[in-house]
Amino acid sequence: MQIEFLGTGAGSPSKQRNVSSLALKLLEERNSIWLFDCGEATQHQILRTNIRPRKVDKIFITHLHGDHIFGLPGFLSSRSFQGGSGPLTIYGPAGLKAFVNTALKVSESHLNYPLKFVELNRGGEIYQDNKFSVFAAKLDHKIACFGYRVVEHDHPGELQVDALKKAGIPSGPIYGQLKAGKTVKLPDGRVVDGHDFIGQPQKGRVVTIIGDTRQSKNAVKLAENADVLVHESTFAKDEAKMAHNYYHSTCAQAAEVAKEAHVKRLLLDHISARYVGKAAYQLAYQVHDIFPHTRVVNDFDEIDVPFVKKGAD
Amino acid sequence: MQIEFLGTGAGSPSKQRNVSSLALKLLEERNSIWLFDCGEATQHQILRTNIRPRKVDKIFITHLHGDHIFGLPGFLSSRSFQGGSGPLTIYGPAGLKAFVNTALKVSESHLNYPLKFVELNRGGEIYQDNKFSVFAAKLDHKIACFGYRVVEHDHPGELQVDALKKAGIPSGPIYGQLKAGKTVKLPDGRVVDGHDFIGQPQKGRVVTIIGDTRQSKNAVKLAENADVLVHESTFAKDEAKMAHNYYHSTCAQAAEVAKEAHVKRLLLDHISARYVGKAAYQLAYQVHDIFPHTRVVNDFDEIDVPFVKKGAD
Ligand SMILES: [Zn+2]
Ligand SMILES: [Zn+2]
Repeated sequence: MQIEFLGTGAGSPSKQRNVSSLALKLLEERNSIWLFDCGEATQHQILRTNIRPRKVDKIFITHLHGDHIFGLPGFLSSRSFQGGSGPLTIYGPAGLKAFVNTALKVSESHLNYPLKFVELNRGGEIYQDNKFSVFAAKLDHKIACFGYRVVEHDHPGELQVDALKKAGIPSGPIYGQLKAGKTVKLPDGRVVDGHDFIGQPQKGRVVTIIGDTRQSKNAVKLAENADVLVHESTFAKDEAKMAHNYYHSTCAQAAEVAKEAHVKRLLLDHISARYVGKAAYQLAYQVHDIFPHTRVVNDFDEIDVPFVKKGAD
Repeated sequence: MQIEFLGTGAGSPSKQRNVSSLALKLLEERNSIWLFDCGEATQHQILRTNIRPRKVDKIFITHLHGDHIFGLPGFLSSRSFQGGSGPLTIYGPAGLKAFVNTALKVSESHLNYPLKFVELNRGGEIYQDNKFSVFAAKLDHKIACFGYRVVEHDHPGELQVDALKKAGIPSGPIYGQLKAGKTVKLPDGRVVDGHDFIGQPQKGRVVTIIGDTRQSKNAVKLAENADVLVHESTFAKDEAKMAHNYYHSTCAQAAEVAKEAHVKRLLLDHISARYVGKAAYQLAYQVHDIFPHTRVVNDFDEIDVPFVKKGAD
């Protein structure tokens, strides 16, 4: 599980940062990639990565401002042109479908795959499969904006095959029963409890992505104990008033959310073009006292989201 | 007058070529810039040039395929964000207005300038001011597609002030009459014909831009005696069948149009991603026998369109 940042800027593209998009790579987990937001030229950014558009089977849109959606029609068309045939679902606020469908219709773009829309009116669990759940909640932006929490289900403990063999218990259908936690009587008379041979369960990982917003209680809820929190940081610490007026957050406000939510790591994106070079990195230094494990991300940064070591935490 | 190519690729962006857009720079002539087509990430390309979006006061769209229009909403929004306040007019096939307005509405993008649409149903003169006329004509593409002919009006000859002074005719209101071509009686009795002191008129320049099309008679008409013909060249010489099937042209067909129309110069764009490096330049070599003054253009190429020397041609 990795997060690859495709656009870490705010509002308009600059030479340093493209408008919003990030890829949550779930290749080992489910052989697919999820995009969060798709600003203009997201497909161009993808050309410079090893991401294959056909692998993208879900796109989550935080809100409908242009810097978060104007890359959708082009990405969707190119995914088809490049041979993508698997279904794709887009989640986001109402209006998304009208935008995409008008663009595709006017341009007579025919997609060679089924495209589905899930327009969100409220928060809650919006997706679940046998490995992941996704939760959404409304944030505090000028227009309807959602944050997303991606929860990997806990992995049950694995059967300790080595230990079983050491104990002289031969492999066979009995392993399945032990793995299920049952108590089994062996041919030699021994009674074995499966639980004694099952390792610790592996806690699933949590990634929270907070789109454009003022400091928000719902952001804290979505981020609770997350392994990684990606939070917008349009303004510097001393620009709280400006941030409020424009419905955005300062780096300090993002750090407060991270702290309250007890996340492991905070990544700041949606960086205004006014902060270039050192000034951008300073957004992280400014919050060192609030939440030290903070980093300002750049386009094409790739962040690994490792499992927490078993038994740790 | 210069043409700066912003996107010279076909269909999808590649690392080498962006999707379609070019800028006709009329800075000396009318202190403005006209865009022809506006594929996705045209505004990103512009970031790498000295073009200021506020200078763009007209956009001509050849057709509504995504690679020619998906950059419009982003460009229009950024033009406003960057302080552009002068009116902007977009010309192109019907459907344009619905596409742009849906994108702007859904994203709640408010432009700080008047935006006007001129949807074309047929060809003819679509614009005229005191310096330029623009003509459009339908081409032969899968969907409605227009080519454009930009005609600079001839400059009337200039009054030869040096010659007048040499002839001992003092400056004064009389110069205005002579410039208007009148015959004037001087105080010393001499009778002077203005025509004798007016230089040769300067022929206006003609630039023709031919969007996606099969080889087309209307392309020839639009290109007649043009100084520069920009013509799509999606396919190589030996791919005429493919070109026909996809409603595109080969380089040879573009050269035939240039030859028939007696243009001065042919620039090939809309180059398929299958032709990279040498293979792209070969599209020009392949037509050397048909029309020698041919060049394959790349993104960011800037082509000057000089006046033809007076008396030449
Ligand atoms: Zn934004
Ligand atoms: Zn095209």
